[in-house]
Amino acid sequence: MHKFDVIIIGAGSAGLSALREVRKRTDNFIVINDGPWGTTCARVGCMPSKLLIEAANAFHRRVSFNEFGITGADQLRLDDKQVMQRLRRLRDNFVSSTLRATNELGERAISGRARILSPDQVVVNGEKFNAHKIIIATGSRPIIPANWPELGKRLLTTDTLFELDTLPKNIAVIGMGAVGLEMAQALSRLGVYVTGFGSRDSVGGISDPFINQKAVELLKKEFPLYLGERASVAINPDNHSISVRTENVEVKVDSILAALGRQPNIDDIGLDTLGVSLDERGMPSINPATLQIEDLPIFLVGDANRRFPLLHEAADDGHIAGLNATMDKLTCFERRVPLAIIFTDPNIAVVGQSFHSLKPENIVMGEVSFSNQGRARSAQSNYGALRIYAAANSGQLLGAEMCAPAGEHFAHLLALAISQSLNVWDLLRMPFYHPVLEEGLRTALRSLSAKLPAYGKSDLAACGSFNSEALD
Amino acid sequence: MHKFDVIIIGAGSAGLSALREVRKRTDNFIVINDGPWGTTCARVGCMPSKLLIEAANAFHRRVSFNEFGITGADQLRLDDKQVMQRLRRLRDNFVSSTLRATNELGERAISGRARILSPDQVVVNGEKFNAHKIIIATGSRPIIPANWPELGKRLLTTDTLFELDTLPKNIAVIGMGAVGLEMAQALSRLGVYVTGFGSRDSVGGISDPFINQKAVELLKKEFPLYLGERASVAINPDNHSISVRTENVEVKVDSILAALGRQPNIDDIGLDTLGVSLDERGMPSINPATLQIEDLPIFLVGDANRRFPLLHEAADDGHIAGLNATMDKLTCFERRVPLAIIFTDPNIAVVGQSFHSLKPENIVMGEVSFSNQGRARSAQSNYGALRIYAAANSGQLLGAEMCAPAGEHFAHLLALAISQSLNVWDLLRMPFYHPVLEEGLRTALRSLSAKLPAYGKSDLAACGSFNSEALD
Repeated sequence: MHKFDVIIIGAGSAGLSALREVRKRTDNFIVINDGPWGTTCARVGCMPSKLLIEAANAFHRRVSFNEFGITGADQLRLDDKQVMQRLRRLRDNFVSSTLRATNELGERAISGRARILSPDQVVVNGEKFNAHKIIIATGSRPIIPANWPELGKRLLTTDTLFELDTLPKNIAVIGMGAVGLEMAQALSRLGVYVTGFGSRDSVGGISDPFINQKAVELLKKEFPLYLGERASVAINPDNHSISVRTENVEVKVDSILAALGRQPNIDDIGLDTLGVSLDERGMPSINPATLQIEDLPIFLVGDANRRFPLLHEAADDGHIAGLNATMDKLTCFERRVPLAIIFTDPNIAVVGQSFHSLKPENIVMGEVSFSNQGRARSAQSNYGALRIYAAANSGQLLGAEMCAPAGEHFAHLLALAISQSLNVWDLLRMPFYHPVLEEGLRTALRSLSAKLPAYGKSDLAACGSFNSEALD
Repeated sequence: MHKFDVIIIGAGSAGLSALREVRKRTDNFIVINDGPWGTTCARVGCMPSKLLIEAANAFHRRVSFNEFGITGADQLRLDDKQVMQRLRRLRDNFVSSTLRATNELGERAISGRARILSPDQVVVNGEKFNAHKIIIATGSRPIIPANWPELGKRLLTTDTLFELDTLPKNIAVIGMGAVGLEMAQALSRLGVYVTGFGSRDSVGGISDPFINQKAVELLKKEFPLYLGERASVAINPDNHSISVRTENVEVKVDSILAALGRQPNIDDIGLDTLGVSLDERGMPSINPATLQIEDLPIFLVGDANRRFPLLHEAADDGHIAGLNATMDKLTCFERRVPLAIIFTDPNIAVVGQSFHSLKPENIVMGEVSFSNQGRARSAQSNYGALRIYAAANSGQLLGAEMCAPAGEHFAHLLALAISQSLNVWDLLRMPFYHPVLEEGLRTALRSLSAKLPAYGKSDLAACGSFNSEALD
């Protein structure tokens, strides 16, 4: 029986990234995909959500117009049909570019649900295929609580939200992680009456209480937000409206957006046939530096491995697995500095080690509020705050959390600094132009620097003393 | 006669930065300032220009509204009186914060024009003061060509533009450096009929022809722009309109904004009394690492020394001079990586070594166009391009030029990278979130990396091979 070099199960971001590497070294592979081809990111994730956000923020900017000296903002209207049409038009274009890689594969691209029968055999549509290596990249799907009633079309997830012709009038967004926050703010800015519910006191993966408080304050100015209690969902006796309840509040809505995270699509992939132990969630042990499952010729990548449901991590997973599935020797790769960004306004971001993961006695912190920052005031974006954490003994930058204007850009700058093991003085030696939002970041760095024993007289590096006497 | 430790001449950005250091170590100083107190940056530079730009860009965003699904953009009107009122209200607030440092000095703050009589003596308002050290921070003023006719109020500079109650109808902006570009685009977006004139073929200090071409293309879509010829200015016989002429074009305008750069205020400061040689522009020799004039106890800082008319450089100048004027030993400081940003949309920036300053045979280049970048397309900001230069032998990043969305943020990221002597692979190892504009920067980095001999299989760092046999 023919034996493929590699079978890739799943043609999402991780699978396509693996495919890119596999194709460089062999033609003897197949890709199996269940459900629609095209990635979660392009179809129902990063891209359509950003398109909704861009429209929402464009419309929202009218609240700044009066102060800027622009009249007529009250004449602006949102055509939600047009918003959704543009969203899908660009979304489809983004999806089509992800499809190019598999469209040309011909018979090597198989539609169907795969199941692993043994470490070198897969069955799909009743047909068995053998392979030297298998890459599992089956992705994830939105979590829907089992105890919710049957809500039909009134229950939305990111799988269905972007297919709407028009926006709902009144929605509860349940779950205040990245997706919940982004969609709650965007829908609210688009004119939907939004109520947000989060079971934790913190939102968006922020672990620093100071940053979380700033973020929650800002979000609460835009829509009601109930945190710290699990929300229950019930259909009212009129069989029309839906009630969302916590202990202290009841809200009637037309529809619900479930934003409770995603679960990996590994339920019936056949991990149980591999002879490896699975944890209580059904997950095998994976080496994040190789993506290998124990010592099997099988790799588990992307959302399916539960590590980080983030495109750039999925792409790295696929890249590493694709290389390791086609190279003579198994190579272990250093993973990147952790980086999570939520595209709310202001942006929320966590870079490097989170506040929660650090021991207070080992770190010093620097912080800045943007409420009085010059450039931010000019742009009417003077909201939010940022905190940076550094090692108390060396000043080495360890992490940062923020809810800040241009946070997505600060997050990249700090990720570079952390990935290069830079300390606070290394950063203070770079130029900060004027007037820029990065000057706020510098304020935080300086406040951090001032708490360290090695705090000096200057941000600049001395290139030596002339050892001259005083000049006069 | 009393001898001060330090006399600071000029209370602008450089002088105030010097003052901050001087005050830490002595009370025996005076500050002399000619003309209005408050810095060029806050009064007539960085800050009011940014306020005009923010209003202009807010109004300009309406051109994206139809595509975003927002109707009624044609009902928006700009109230230029309100724009200018907000500008001055915030401007005055920014100025007041710069005044705080000198307001509390009492008699140690002297208004008047100082002249140096000898290396330890200054005269102001007929009174002589002696000092161990003198810091000259007299700033600069806009250049007006001597051969222009007397235009009265129809001639604007940044000294007068921000004082207007209403905006002119029809203006020629002469000079396409930072100020000219920023103001030409902003005024055009605010509804003024703008014509731009630049004597060079390049604009905004861009030296890379590819980037310059992109910038000029984009600007020409917004207003007529004539480059490569010096413009002459004449009052028409009707004595009302002004004609601006080059060899090939004549434009009639109501007013002119002179944006031809700034000249240092050193004409009659008394540099000729110091016994040092002056160049053809009247400038003495200065050590940029100490700001000292030759071996005199005199420091020349900020715009007055002609190095870079940029706030962050002026602040560093003042800081270094303030330290060196009050410390026992003269210390030399490493200056920051060069950074220039122009707050046009898209931003223009030059970081590190410019294209022009590098030898083609020593570098490799990476580039990206933003026209098809995913996030930029989502935001309707998919314009512009970026080029990065690295050493051909090592991949070390040397510089970049750009006209790109979020260019001000890329410029800071690259300035950090260059200041830390990072190479292209160091940058490729940082996380790039999705979807962000920084992914465009990564495209440029990858295109650069692919041209280098050390180009490898992965952006990620290998942490070693297991040296195992192939897995199956």
